[in-house]
Amino acid sequence: MFNDEYFMKLALQEAQIAFAREEVPVGCVVVANGRIIAKSHNLTQTLNDVTAHAEMQAITAAADFIGGKYLQNCTMYVTLEPCVMCAGALSWSQISKVVIGARDEQRGFLNKNLTLHPKTEITTGVLAEECSALVKSFFQSRR
Amino acid sequence: MFNDEYFMKLALQEAQIAFAREEVPVGCVVVANGRIIAKSHNLTQTLNDVTAHAEMQAITAAADFIGGKYLQNCTMYVTLEPCVMCAGALSWSQISKVVIGARDEQRGFLNKNLTLHPKTEITTGVLAEECSALVKSFFQSRR
Repeated sequence: MFNDEYFMKLALQEAQIAFAREEVPVGCVVVANGRIIAKSHNLTQTLNDVTAHAEMQAITAAADFIGGKYLQNCTMYVTLEPCVMCAGALSWSQISKVVIGARDEQRGFLNKNLTLHPKTEITTGVLAEECSALVKSFFQSRR
Repeated sequence: MFNDEYFMKLALQEAQIAFAREEVPVGCVVVANGRIIAKSHNLTQTLNDVTAHAEMQAITAAADFIGGKYLQNCTMYVTLEPCVMCAGALSWSQISKVVIGARDEQRGFLNKNLTLHPKTEITTGVLAEECSALVKSFFQSRR
């Protein structure tokens, strides 16, 4: 029951909160030992802060919960492929696993020849259609 | 008098504060219209947070000062070449200019085929020796 889709659905719920706040709808949760230790959604507009991506907030919150800056036994579920900034932060965090919903061919890090920490496992395509549809719907509603 | 070296010296003072706190000594200031609107130093150890690089804090603080998330009329002076995470954040910020002290061949973004915003001007090598010496001295003291 507590599989990748289960946690990605929770990340999608976070993305939907962002959507309702007129933020680019990206959400994420961080899981350690089967427990959610952080959840967040994009808040760049609300906070007037380009660094307030869902992943950045979740990394800070998870480290705060753990009481240490490395996320070595953690998995992040994020609805959209992280950007260069967030990939850099994930790399510093030494996180164990990153599970990605939809790809972001333009802004995502996977096409940019960047790598995360050597110990970090990456999975893509979990609930990709739902995650992608939410972002597309957001940008269509803004036109 | 208020030239690049003047502001880099102030960034170096920030880096020295980091050094005294046993943080990797990187400092930065953000200048708009000749005024310093943000200054910061690396706080990753103190805050237990890999995202607490000097540049990240300065971007957030400068945007807060301006009341908008884009730093289009701002120059950042930073003692060490930004990493991938900070380069990604600077890119989102659309900052006008980044002035770099010492290069960071291993962790810096310049060797990684990443670009900042097309409108962002980049200058390197301002007080490079002083900036580099401080970082080297820090790592030598930790061995």
